[in-house]
Amino acid sequence: MFLSELIPLSEALAILGGNQKVMETEIINLEDSYLRVLAKEIYSLHDSPPFDKSAMDGYAVKAEDTFGASSNVVKNLKIIDQIGAGDFSTKELKEGEAIKIATGAPIPDGANAVLMEEYTVSDGENLEIHSQVTPNDNIAFCGEDLKKGDKVAKSCTIIRPQEMGLIASAGFNKIEVYKKPNVKLIITGNELVEPSPKLEKAQTINSNKYTISAMIKSTGADIEIEHSQDNFYKVREAILNGTNDYDLVITTGGTAISKGDVVIDAVDDIGEVLIHGVALRPGKPFGFGIVNNTPVFMLSGYPVAAMGQFDALVRQYLFKMQNILYNPKVEKRIATLKIFSNLGRTDYVRTFSDDKNTKYVLNRGSGIIRSMVEANSYVIIDENQEGVAKGDWVDVLFFDNMNWNK
Amino acid sequence: MFLSELIPLSEALAILGGNQKVMETEIINLEDSYLRVLAKEIYSLHDSPPFDKSAMDGYAVKAEDTFGASSNVVKNLKIIDQIGAGDFSTKELKEGEAIKIATGAPIPDGANAVLMEEYTVSDGENLEIHSQVTPNDNIAFCGEDLKKGDKVAKSCTIIRPQEMGLIASAGFNKIEVYKKPNVKLIITGNELVEPSPKLEKAQTINSNKYTISAMIKSTGADIEIEHSQDNFYKVREAILNGTNDYDLVITTGGTAISKGDVVIDAVDDIGEVLIHGVALRPGKPFGFGIVNNTPVFMLSGYPVAAMGQFDALVRQYLFKMQNILYNPKVEKRIATLKIFSNLGRTDYVRTFSDDKNTKYVLNRGSGIIRSMVEANSYVIIDENQEGVAKGDWVDVLFFDNMNWNK
Repeated sequence: MFLSELIPLSEALAILGGNQKVMETEIINLEDSYLRVLAKEIYSLHDSPPFDKSAMDGYAVKAEDTFGASSNVVKNLKIIDQIGAGDFSTKELKEGEAIKIATGAPIPDGANAVLMEEYTVSDGENLEIHSQVTPNDNIAFCGEDLKKGDKVAKSCTIIRPQEMGLIASAGFNKIEVYKKPNVKLIITGNELVEPSPKLEKAQTINSNKYTISAMIKSTGADIEIEHSQDNFYKVREAILNGTNDYDLVITTGGTAISKGDVVIDAVDDIGEVLIHGVALRPGKPFGFGIVNNTPVFMLSGYPVAAMGQFDALVRQYLFKMQNILYNPKVEKRIATLKIFSNLGRTDYVRTFSDDKNTKYVLNRGSGIIRSMVEANSYVIIDENQEGVAKGDWVDVLFFDNMNWNK
Repeated sequence: MFLSELIPLSEALAILGGNQKVMETEIINLEDSYLRVLAKEIYSLHDSPPFDKSAMDGYAVKAEDTFGASSNVVKNLKIIDQIGAGDFSTKELKEGEAIKIATGAPIPDGANAVLMEEYTVSDGENLEIHSQVTPNDNIAFCGEDLKKGDKVAKSCTIIRPQEMGLIASAGFNKIEVYKKPNVKLIITGNELVEPSPKLEKAQTINSNKYTISAMIKSTGADIEIEHSQDNFYKVREAILNGTNDYDLVITTGGTAISKGDVVIDAVDDIGEVLIHGVALRPGKPFGFGIVNNTPVFMLSGYPVAAMGQFDALVRQYLFKMQNILYNPKVEKRIATLKIFSNLGRTDYVRTFSDDKNTKYVLNRGSGIIRSMVEANSYVIIDENQEGVAKGDWVDVLFFDNMNWNK
């Protein structure tokens, strides 16, 4: 039996940091890359635009030929060719000539501006022009967005729509990204059953399956769920199989402090328990171990304790596995109620915060999921701090700011 | 040919509001509901916990029997039964008796507290107790999280992990949500090709396919993409098919102002063009129409203009289709450079903002995707405002704050 010992949150995070796994990379299609994490920096294979191109539908001209034209003073040019989108002209424009051109088509040799179609009248051969242009007007120049060899994106970039567009323009339809962690979630608890309108005596609905699996998904990881019986051998087998087939295993339940409990004992039997017990509220009965060189996070069976443990200890680990820089913004708010806390323990207090104040959600029991629904933030009370007084400025972490695309 | 006319952004938004479609609902499994939008309020079918249950592994006792016990003063009780998780006892506890109980198991009749296992020594029949408890200690009471009939979630709630847990506890494994909009994205532009290391003359890489499809996905919608030739009949057919099979159609390209352009003309031919031209920069050549009772958003072919149009006009429409309340937080920052803008036009200026300042990204061309990559925010300059001076406080909309789960 592993001897549990409460350690500070900071020490638990240091142990996790020393046992951080990082995913391997894979090549995927660019079109599937939204919100994935780039594994290698990207340099452009092209100038973009790849040639001087027309920014308007109109006529490629020598700007000098248009000088003086206006709604009152009509000038005339001779149309010698036309260039549709995706097309180009082999002709060279000479004085007094115009070539009809579509948006996006290459500027023909000899032209130095494009006159918008709406300022012209044409019979197909002769072009009346009713406006002048200056050189370079309505031309998008070769390489003005990207030059060949330009760095387009750094390694570890989270890919937003605009990165996808720029990487496409750089010439890539496949990219190398970090694999998503494949997580096995093992729920223990013989009393737990699926949601149903009718419950037998002693049955409780399995809510952790829903909350913890959604929290895992929220980090970008993939997940599979197993419900194991509260039996040392069954739990040990489930964890062993999980560590063979998945990148990370998370369990819920069976982590009580100060006595042998089934999940901790199982990990102790087949691997090494590195943490059991963290001075964290809610979330004290937290365990972490390594089995088969695979991290195993052991969360409480209490729904709110498990969520708190996930936010304080698991979330950052899953982000780092994917090389996502996770540094959630902490904002300052005024506490509208006194909040109790003990020295030597970190509190994640569920609160509702607005632009100015934060107020704790009164029901603090670690089984009360409703308190997480009513809250939108945590007030984090550091282990060196002994509660906060009404009116104190406190650190607030909005749940929204824990999203991975922040 | 539809006669285009620049209208203010506010007027365009009012026209969109008058033509807002809302999705129908569907029943899905609760486990697939993360970030979906609830269509009906939910009331609990159960008390949760469904019975008074033990919050610890230990012994159910009459608290009065433990009074005075301590590490020095040992008391003894007789063990008459044991209750595992998911199990219950039919016995009633009497004075001097204890029943071994697992976390989550129902408190047996006659008991009023649970003594933690670590304060006991047992040979299976006799129990030595080394600590006292007070009545109600270590009991989670029936209904302390939810009472049968309690409202668990309001209609239009975006489902987070904690809502999933609470809805599960309320007894539901299926819920009614708004369907995701199914969007057809039609890219026009004969010059556009897939990303590749080698381009033929006059070819340009199709970046809108990537940026706009990812932006559509970012709103929670599903998407299919088609590349249509720049030909009135082809475009008309693609749009007509799109409006038959999808909830919404988005096109890129072919929206030039002040002349007949292929996409606008096609929609005008088979439906009604309600907007063509918005006093917005970037993004003036924006069109909106109704074909087959289906909204058709016509975006510019210019990558950055199309992204600006999406953010200013399409994003909120897709959210409202799903009944997502979209009211992105606008923050105040100090402009570190003068920004030009004209009265009567709304500018979405790409900027990089930190905690204090905002600085515009210098290259403002509407084809320059790199400017969207370097920016993290827009400064929005209202149509009634004529630019901003260096040092002015301005409205900043962080790209992150446009996410739907904000």
